[in-house]
Amino acid sequence: MSTEGTPVKTAVLITIIGESVPRDRLVKLLKSKEVTGYTISQAQGEGGHGRRLGDIAGYNTNIEIKTVVSPEDSEDILRAVMEMRNGHALMAFRQNVELLSNE
Amino acid sequence: MSTEGTPVKTAVLITIIGESVPRDRLVKLLKSKEVTGYTISQAQGEGGHGRRLGDIAGYNTNIEIKTVVSPEDSEDILRAVMEMRNGHALMAFRQNVELLSNE
Amino acid sequence: MSTEGTPVKTAVLITIIGESVPRDRLVKLLKSKEVTGYTISQAQGEGGHGRRLGDIAGYNTNIEIKTVVSPEDSEDILRAVMEMRNGHALMAFRQNVELLSNE
Repeated sequence: MSTEGTPVKTAVLITIIGESVPRDRLVKLLKSKEVTGYTISQAQGEGGHGRRLGDIAGYNTNIEIKTVVSPEDSEDILRAVMEMRNGHALMAFRQNVELLSNE
Repeated sequence: MSTEGTPVKTAVLITIIGESVPRDRLVKLLKSKEVTGYTISQAQGEGGHGRRLGDIAGYNTNIEIKTVVSPEDSEDILRAVMEMRNGHALMAFRQNVELLSNE
Repeated sequence: MSTEGTPVKTAVLITIIGESVPRDRLVKLLKSKEVTGYTISQAQGEGGHGRRLGDIAGYNTNIEIKTVVSPEDSEDILRAVMEMRNGHALMAFRQNVELLSNE
């Protein structure tokens, strides 16, 4: 992707999806890492947590939290999500993005 | 992205978006590929299927299905989506992600 | 990601998120760039625009617009978004994707 003329910087999009996510704890976690923003949306879903879909009775409401952070902060946040995942059906992944810069 | 200290593995996020997607067939397809989970959400949208936006009368409700799978399974799933696309306004794309691992 | 057997092409997913986005202007912008489709969804959110989360009183409704375009068009669209961002709490980022091709 050419970046000629458009000020972009490399950042990391983190997506956290869960059916029984402790939303308040996740938001508190993001705030403690001083992220500048996040969005929360809902989706129907099945699965996760190592089970196969065939094992699961029906649809659930999942929440999906997304935030764009620096590469360094993404490491901190994923590690903290991993620590709070215990007992919750929770998945998280990250991707590099080119973020339109403020400058 | 540094992965020091945080157990991540390379995976593939597949996104399928369509305005007239046969949802049940797509879910059945994902189950047949033994994916461990997916989410379905709704969005307003326009376009797709080779038409330009100016050709289209109004907004439609699209569904968006997302699933995170192994690179090998992503290949199978995209091929199957392509085969069922015939006659449906359907798009699909994939991206590499770093998935927080269970181990 | 192997592409053997499945016709994919490199494309760019653009995501625009904002709490006070002039939706009609963004849609008009996308149409002027002849994108073949986009989706709009809503999400709760906090933050953006250089403020820290702690400065902000409560949740807001954000809109999220996504479109998949060619690498060249992504450059044009980001530049135009940057120009219309003035005064709006708006973020935008792009990612490479492998798009299932029509051929």
